[in-house]
Amino acid sequence: MRNTSSATVSKEKIPVAVIGASGYTGLELIRLLWNHPKVLLTAATSRQYEGKQVSKVFPHLNQIDLKFSDLRVQTIGKSAKVVFLCLPHQESMEIAKSLRDLGTKVIDLSADFRFKNTKTYEKHYCEHTQKKLAKEAVYGLCEIFGEDLRKSFLTAVPGCYVTSILLALAPLVQGQMIVLDDIICNSASGTSGAGRSAKTNLLFSEVQQNFLAYGFHDKGHRHRPEIEEKLSMLCGGQKIKIAFVPHLLPTSRGILSSIYVKPIRKWSDETLRNVYKKFYKRSPFISIMSDQQMPTLKSVVGTNRCEISLHYDQHSERLIIHSALDNLLKGASGQAVQCFNLMHGFEETLGLEKLAVFP
Amino acid sequence: MRNTSSATVSKEKIPVAVIGASGYTGLELIRLLWNHPKVLLTAATSRQYEGKQVSKVFPHLNQIDLKFSDLRVQTIGKSAKVVFLCLPHQESMEIAKSLRDLGTKVIDLSADFRFKNTKTYEKHYCEHTQKKLAKEAVYGLCEIFGEDLRKSFLTAVPGCYVTSILLALAPLVQGQMIVLDDIICNSASGTSGAGRSAKTNLLFSEVQQNFLAYGFHDKGHRHRPEIEEKLSMLCGGQKIKIAFVPHLLPTSRGILSSIYVKPIRKWSDETLRNVYKKFYKRSPFISIMSDQQMPTLKSVVGTNRCEISLHYDQHSERLIIHSALDNLLKGASGQAVQCFNLMHGFEETLGLEKLAVFP
Amino acid sequence: MRNTSSATVSKEKIPVAVIGASGYTGLELIRLLWNHPKVLLTAATSRQYEGKQVSKVFPHLNQIDLKFSDLRVQTIGKSAKVVFLCLPHQESMEIAKSLRDLGTKVIDLSADFRFKNTKTYEKHYCEHTQKKLAKEAVYGLCEIFGEDLRKSFLTAVPGCYVTSILLALAPLVQGQMIVLDDIICNSASGTSGAGRSAKTNLLFSEVQQNFLAYGFHDKGHRHRPEIEEKLSMLCGGQKIKIAFVPHLLPTSRGILSSIYVKPIRKWSDETLRNVYKKFYKRSPFISIMSDQQMPTLKSVVGTNRCEISLHYDQHSERLIIHSALDNLLKGASGQAVQCFNLMHGFEETLGLEKLAVFP
Amino acid sequence: MRNTSSATVSKEKIPVAVIGASGYTGLELIRLLWNHPKVLLTAATSRQYEGKQVSKVFPHLNQIDLKFSDLRVQTIGKSAKVVFLCLPHQESMEIAKSLRDLGTKVIDLSADFRFKNTKTYEKHYCEHTQKKLAKEAVYGLCEIFGEDLRKSFLTAVPGCYVTSILLALAPLVQGQMIVLDDIICNSASGTSGAGRSAKTNLLFSEVQQNFLAYGFHDKGHRHRPEIEEKLSMLCGGQKIKIAFVPHLLPTSRGILSSIYVKPIRKWSDETLRNVYKKFYKRSPFISIMSDQQMPTLKSVVGTNRCEISLHYDQHSERLIIHSALDNLLKGASGQAVQCFNLMHGFEETLGLEKLAVFP
Repeated sequence: MRNTSSATVSKEKIPVAVIGASGYTGLELIRLLWNHPKVLLTAATSRQYEGKQVSKVFPHLNQIDLKFSDLRVQTIGKSAKVVFLCLPHQESMEIAKSLRDLGTKVIDLSADFRFKNTKTYEKHYCEHTQKKLAKEAVYGLCEIFGEDLRKSFLTAVPGCYVTSILLALAPLVQGQMIVLDDIICNSASGTSGAGRSAKTNLLFSEVQQNFLAYGFHDKGHRHRPEIEEKLSMLCGGQKIKIAFVPHLLPTSRGILSSIYVKPIRKWSDETLRNVYKKFYKRSPFISIMSDQQMPTLKSVVGTNRCEISLHYDQHSERLIIHSALDNLLKGASGQAVQCFNLMHGFEETLGLEKLAVFP
Repeated sequence: MRNTSSATVSKEKIPVAVIGASGYTGLELIRLLWNHPKVLLTAATSRQYEGKQVSKVFPHLNQIDLKFSDLRVQTIGKSAKVVFLCLPHQESMEIAKSLRDLGTKVIDLSADFRFKNTKTYEKHYCEHTQKKLAKEAVYGLCEIFGEDLRKSFLTAVPGCYVTSILLALAPLVQGQMIVLDDIICNSASGTSGAGRSAKTNLLFSEVQQNFLAYGFHDKGHRHRPEIEEKLSMLCGGQKIKIAFVPHLLPTSRGILSSIYVKPIRKWSDETLRNVYKKFYKRSPFISIMSDQQMPTLKSVVGTNRCEISLHYDQHSERLIIHSALDNLLKGASGQAVQCFNLMHGFEETLGLEKLAVFP
Repeated sequence: MRNTSSATVSKEKIPVAVIGASGYTGLELIRLLWNHPKVLLTAATSRQYEGKQVSKVFPHLNQIDLKFSDLRVQTIGKSAKVVFLCLPHQESMEIAKSLRDLGTKVIDLSADFRFKNTKTYEKHYCEHTQKKLAKEAVYGLCEIFGEDLRKSFLTAVPGCYVTSILLALAPLVQGQMIVLDDIICNSASGTSGAGRSAKTNLLFSEVQQNFLAYGFHDKGHRHRPEIEEKLSMLCGGQKIKIAFVPHLLPTSRGILSSIYVKPIRKWSDETLRNVYKKFYKRSPFISIMSDQQMPTLKSVVGTNRCEISLHYDQHSERLIIHSALDNLLKGASGQAVQCFNLMHGFEETLGLEKLAVFP
Repeated sequence: MRNTSSATVSKEKIPVAVIGASGYTGLELIRLLWNHPKVLLTAATSRQYEGKQVSKVFPHLNQIDLKFSDLRVQTIGKSAKVVFLCLPHQESMEIAKSLRDLGTKVIDLSADFRFKNTKTYEKHYCEHTQKKLAKEAVYGLCEIFGEDLRKSFLTAVPGCYVTSILLALAPLVQGQMIVLDDIICNSASGTSGAGRSAKTNLLFSEVQQNFLAYGFHDKGHRHRPEIEEKLSMLCGGQKIKIAFVPHLLPTSRGILSSIYVKPIRKWSDETLRNVYKKFYKRSPFISIMSDQQMPTLKSVVGTNRCEISLHYDQHSERLIIHSALDNLLKGASGQAVQCFNLMHGFEETLGLEKLAVFP
């Protein structure tokens, strides 16, 4: 049960820090990095809990011998070779710049560097002050941009909804097997995706026994343009158009996306599965479901896996795709560690092997 | 707290029986009928609990002074003027025939009399042995077939998924405001919709923290043709084509349908709401949500209401509709009582104004 | 579905206001009072939602045609003959005083007037500035202080934990059938008992799949001395000593108290049940469970009932009592309406016969 | 993600089988053993799923390349050196005998070999046909019987309730610091403790939003005498008397025991914590909580840990102890693997290091 990683600085271990470590994604990173055989966790910052033992504030991290520290970029940049940023968008970009100036690698979990087109970012978020840096950033969806990630110094980790939809659609869009501007993405997420700040609408009393859609009015949810930009890159820049509606599930973790597209031909389910299996043949975290087996939250929560099912509905002539993943793992911190592995030439699955806990 | 309905036979009260009363819809009927000012509940049958006090087996019905009895059609037909059938399909049609032969009115909650086209029924369920009777049956969606229901002797109450989708689409389909063969219905239901029989996949340990799609492969879910038949009736018999995918929610009650259609023109949200408000102006249980307010399970569970929201998504040029209802009330037993009210010339809302909840 | 109560002022209806109406107990009062046949709800105050339609902010109250107003004691005191106070302790006592000075009856759901001994109050809460008024207050546990309530002008409604424990123990303590200073109360409550203010530890992500004890260290939970004072009154002032430990359940509503006492003799379960049935023979909301039937949250949530079971454990020579109730109904707002009924000579159950549920 | 354990038979790995592998404890064992560095999982039997791929039936075990087989004791006994039995009591004892006759080590998760006094077993379960074998069996509570386990060939793994109570009381009872015949154990468990067979009372619809006590009438719950026998062994055979009441929680995993005892002296909380820390100083899975920190299900579920808190309540002069663990891990399969480790001289924590997944 001893993890000696913090005891002595091993030559083989990479010193790593987490900034914004007391939110759900930050805590998940601490958990993953502490047991990662190639990582020495040197710092975890938290304004709220500065100076407190991680294990006292969060007893589930009872084995971890580390105190939350405050955010001093210089100190962190010197002690860590890689920094994971779990900050809100807008805050992230400045810190990332300072860290890059110090030569530190950055793995950013915010939206700040996810867009190639910073104008799209500015339309849906806020002013972008680090446009030059944004061009250098590599998009951290390992199954698709794995090659680029091997050389990345600044990685923008995609979020949970986006990952679940991109993984579900990439093979079809790249192969141009579907009508590209008629895609419907109906997604449902557990509450941890909304973070750990106290809001009335996230209280147990309000979420329990409830289910509702949210956040798709006006300009649409801001994850929509991100999905469209990335899918467009996969099909030579053709226009992608999706309707995206997120829903809030009464679970703490997990995302299920139910996707409806028009295939350009009648594909058998077997053909579809073979296309996906080929596309993902080097992707250990992707499970293509067989027959009529369906992705479920239960079998992905606690893991870095994404389950995908495919079905051609003869009646409506629609292709129906489901994908499930853990929003805090494959949809955030697990994916960030996967990026870290690729960026350092490690086995992609290092520190991420766990099976789901069921039931 | 005394309900004297069973004590003395009032001339004004209609003697009523529930067959198959120990499932979730049956129990909900007992609860509703016991407090209904125009009903005298004379019998509730249950093979499993025959001879036992309802209030002993189900303490939430503690005020009810009635024993479960066995199913003797003759006895029941003589003592009750109206019988609610909460039986599995196939079992229901024979019993309904016997009761109708005795002159008893029947309100059937199974699928047996829901289809005008019994061939469609036979394709998706089983042989139909009462085709003549099926022609007489009135479809119990009060908001749409209310006029017919006033004269009905045999009412086929629609189920939960179908009700949530028909109510959400009826105004658009009747007004032919949308493309009729390109409708996507993504629905999610709580577990009580699957009934009270013990199945491993419905155990708390399996459902909790889970979410998944089911039952849409092969010929598609059998609720699909029912929806298509009824919508087609609303637009002069034109062909309706929908993709319908149900999902299992970790809640005990409630259905939310998320529907995506192509409007034939760009309607403002306000125009759409006005169309719906006009269509449902005499429907006390339908709530059209204002602005960006969304239907939620929390605000319909325990009531006979259906909340509907409408939004035109400029980006995808899709109309996005959400509808929420309680699967055991507006999606089953509440709707059945609403039918009963219409069939007897009572106020539509009688006995349905406010409700307690089980399970 | 029309409730005409707000349309015209009926001579028979009593004008009533709710102060602090947007918390869970306030909302529950609005729901109950709106449908109460003897009540005209004239005002519901809320700092947060002042000027907004109740039904817009809380769609589950869709039938209610009322706006939240601000708290002006003079205005409210003039328009209402009875005011329900759903304020935090300390805030409540001043408002109660002003209202009583105007001649308005007050039903207070805070702790401010629950103690006969204001020194005990001051030890566990804060300074008491209305000690004189405290002497006039009647404790609103209808099953025990019903007679006093008929003449009450200021009623202090007991909270959820306390009600569940007092109702479970009153017959034994009054009959001095148990050792009075060796009582163990292990209670578990759903999250709505903690109110509607946003706190991290009440987020869905934190409560879901969790269970823990809380708040019993140092001076003990402040409900403990309240229980002891009231039980002591039932046995001629003898000293009562209890160990009380509350736990937080992953449910939105409901309290179950598991109580362990030493009987002074070996009573059979039947004898015990008869003692309780006699004690509560005029209490329509108390259900004494038969045989080995157990109280459950499911069968009380949404009602004003309290279920109680009794069992003498031969092995440990302990008497084991369980009681279940809905913390927002019998444990708060339902009980407040029950008090209102008694204070005005109405049937105790008026407006409390059947109920819908939020949250 | 490759686990080569099944590919080649390593000399260092011990061939192991699981009998009754498709229940919750069996599935948990598969998950743990598959990743155990010293284990080669050779067989997992299941009547229901014989011949099917484990990963097809249970997608959360997607990495496992193994088929469920039928139960042939001879075959299994020859291929495995250690067999884990996840069978109902009574079935287990015969199989255990046959396996022991073949020289196979047995780790039994049923109740069959948990009692030293088989008469007590027979009073609460059924006839015991292997009394001689029962004498050889070692009780698998590693923290207390660790020394004996090193030489065990037949280990009886204690269940979840019992483990949570024994760990919470052992230091006090061994030190005779409390009144031994006045112990109250109020426990609450998630639903997976009741197993995976389909029962109506375990349906999601029935458990959700519910909480109730069960199974403590008549002779009392059969875990009670087991607790008393083991505690008695710790204090030189003195008589132990407990009142034990289990409750069913709406969670899938986790047990919290709330225990009330009379100390023979007024101990400070710090003294108590020191006694426990000393008692468990070589027990890596026991966490003694500091200050007023409370055990929670969230921080133990998914791990083999047990959290224990101690508090002396000055008012009631009771010592209040809480303990939390995961019923399928420290309360069943995790504990079984811990026993396996001790029985083979491995590090106690081997294959059990994981941190809890939070939230």
